[in-house]
Amino acid sequence: MRPQDIISRKRDGSTLSDEEIKTFVRGVTDGSFADYQASALLMAIFLRGMDAREQYALTEAMLRSGSSLDFSEIEKPKADKHSTGGVGDKTSLLIAPLAAACGVCVPMISGRGLGHTGGTLDKLESIPGYRVRLSSDEARAILRRVGFVMMGQTAEIAPADRKLYALRDATATVEAIPLIVASIMSKKLAAGLGALALDVKTGTGAFMRDEERARELARALVATGNSFGVRTEALLTDMNQPLGRAVGHAEEVIECVEILRGEGDERARAVRELSVELAARMVALSRLESSVEAARARVLRALESGEALETFRRNVEAQGGDARACDEPRRVLQPSPPREVRVESARAGFVVRVDAAEIGLAVARIGGGRVRVEDEIDPSVGFLADVKLGEEVRKGQALGTLLCRDGARGEEAARRVRSAYTVEDDPPPAGSFKLIKEVIAG
Amino acid sequence: MRPQDIISRKRDGSTLSDEEIKTFVRGVTDGSFADYQASALLMAIFLRGMDAREQYALTEAMLRSGSSLDFSEIEKPKADKHSTGGVGDKTSLLIAPLAAACGVCVPMISGRGLGHTGGTLDKLESIPGYRVRLSSDEARAILRRVGFVMMGQTAEIAPADRKLYALRDATATVEAIPLIVASIMSKKLAAGLGALALDVKTGTGAFMRDEERARELARALVATGNSFGVRTEALLTDMNQPLGRAVGHAEEVIECVEILRGEGDERARAVRELSVELAARMVALSRLESSVEAARARVLRALESGEALETFRRNVEAQGGDARACDEPRRVLQPSPPREVRVESARAGFVVRVDAAEIGLAVARIGGGRVRVEDEIDPSVGFLADVKLGEEVRKGQALGTLLCRDGARGEEAARRVRSAYTVEDDPPPAGSFKLIKEVIAG
Repeated sequence: MRPQDIISRKRDGSTLSDEEIKTFVRGVTDGSFADYQASALLMAIFLRGMDAREQYALTEAMLRSGSSLDFSEIEKPKADKHSTGGVGDKTSLLIAPLAAACGVCVPMISGRGLGHTGGTLDKLESIPGYRVRLSSDEARAILRRVGFVMMGQTAEIAPADRKLYALRDATATVEAIPLIVASIMSKKLAAGLGALALDVKTGTGAFMRDEERARELARALVATGNSFGVRTEALLTDMNQPLGRAVGHAEEVIECVEILRGEGDERARAVRELSVELAARMVALSRLESSVEAARARVLRALESGEALETFRRNVEAQGGDARACDEPRRVLQPSPPREVRVESARAGFVVRVDAAEIGLAVARIGGGRVRVEDEIDPSVGFLADVKLGEEVRKGQALGTLLCRDGARGEEAARRVRSAYTVEDDPPPAGSFKLIKEVIAG
Repeated sequence: MRPQDIISRKRDGSTLSDEEIKTFVRGVTDGSFADYQASALLMAIFLRGMDAREQYALTEAMLRSGSSLDFSEIEKPKADKHSTGGVGDKTSLLIAPLAAACGVCVPMISGRGLGHTGGTLDKLESIPGYRVRLSSDEARAILRRVGFVMMGQTAEIAPADRKLYALRDATATVEAIPLIVASIMSKKLAAGLGALALDVKTGTGAFMRDEERARELARALVATGNSFGVRTEALLTDMNQPLGRAVGHAEEVIECVEILRGEGDERARAVRELSVELAARMVALSRLESSVEAARARVLRALESGEALETFRRNVEAQGGDARACDEPRRVLQPSPPREVRVESARAGFVVRVDAAEIGLAVARIGGGRVRVEDEIDPSVGFLADVKLGEEVRKGQALGTLLCRDGARGEEAARRVRSAYTVEDDPPPAGSFKLIKEVIAG
């Protein structure tokens, strides 16, 4: 089976056989499919699509390109959540302890940030001493002791995905739904999950800006998860503004700890609400409660009782971090406070649009993210949003505060953040920015 | 301008700007566009197409990726012909001397054979001593003295095309019309032509089997040629059987010399007819005659008077070949005659279908062509066809003769050739296999 023949069949709109898909994925891993052949096939898949059977075969072949994590000796139900990514999206840091406190075993494999979105691993590393590079024995021990572990993808998990992702990034084939689904699911399936809650975001700060495309992606993810026997649900959620108050590594961890401590204010409400909802789905899909309502109540109890905070503390200790971050988050995470630049509204009116990606990029540019993979991150910089979509503001009122190290670059970033807010005379229609737009179940 | 952005625009069906196309072609030549990025864009072009303006820009950028041949000091009108390739397609060897004998200057840049089709350069090299690797000074001198020169593409001509062609071959993107047009025309335009006659073949031995697609290709070639100020016409011709009698390097040259000597029999009729027609187009497009009819008459006079044979002889001498090939072609070109294996019809009836590509491949397999680029060619092997489509045959009658070196492989090739002929009880409808199907003018 020559690469050209597989490429030409997809090019002409045919359905690839399981064997052809396996040959492709194996060829990408062992080099018998050249990069330029793989990228031609990726573009053909982008433009021709894949049906459910091809989607299954691609996901399975990518999963089998590497080894799985074996947590089978842990008897608790295993579940995870995955988000397609957004600006200020820090829910993993809350969901993992919330679900673990409710009895779910959460082997959470997360990523690094790139572009306008931050990465969970980078955020956790703003806790002094916190280690995310764990051996599978260490991960298993932490999982057993704490109930959740936070780790990066190992070299053994889905190596085909790493190779394909790098190619997709360079060849404008990232946004193809079958490729996104196989990339996400091959990694998630490697952890041997029984349940998976997905957060598929749509809006100005989302990977899939368009709501209809995001819905299509959510459906494909849910169908694929269920076809592998993993009980999977997705929430389609709003990403038209930073989620919660903080954008920036240390500040996002601080915001999460404050929520776990019961100290989060109104500006953090969306983070709390979405985290509770996703954790509740994990608890319900894991059959630890018989309904989402009961699961939600249990998650809220774990939050309000301080149980989730204690679970988080045990994880920080187990992964080598400074557990005082759970007691005095600001002192531990922002030991040398950055400069503050006030971002003011240029006019009076209502906030009708926020370009969340632009805010993410402005923060990334002052050291709070990676423009290129090799960039170093400054965890202390960021942006704290004071107002939300739909709110009324006075001229000169603070939209938020930019945290930076270098005054000149900070001023420039502040201007960029300011221009990301559109303030108009009339308020947006009521209900325009519903956080959870839809639940997509199998 | 990042490669990804150019790729994504074509992926989404946009029209690329001249600047984007230039960036792509320059990037392919200087390596700033990686192979895997180029192949993703090639697939996007395959599936999204290109409009006339993009086609012009792509062709121009590929032309300008290298240098041109400067024959401007020769005052005669310059013209060439190009065929999309077929089995037994040896018309270049007749057209060049015919047109040159009528006063056209023909700087003919030809290729090597690959797969089921042979290459003009390989055929010429079966004349002992004939050299096709010429410096541009040598080529200019021969052109001035003889009126035509036969040469290979130099490294300086359209280097982007060589790179892209290798990628297209490996990524199932060869058959995209905009890419074919740019590849052909960028090389032809480098010779500074005033006129170009195209032979676009369709049928079982053609690169474009489908007639509608071949017509589309012919139209795009003609439009692009004319947009560069080169008077261009195309003939859409039948390639449902080997053209003429011979398939195989030495035998094809022998067939041409016999036609030039006035010795060709009925089986060579199609070669003579098509060569005269294409040469006449070159003469008419070069404005050496005011109508195609007058040009055809002039070409026939050059053929029948022996003038074309003398022109061919002068070329063979000028390019270092043994000119006795013009007097005793069989003795000079087949000094050690190959074995002959008779290919017989298994039944009585009418020849209703010939798989010409299969015949080409059978000959290639016994050394008469290249399966891979690095294969050596045996010029002496081949196939001589005795019957044509529509002819009635008796059971056991010779369909033709296979010429080979190795008996066992020859028997196998003979079986393969036999199976390429379909003989049925009823004759095909009259006029099914018209040689020249259509003339496509600008």
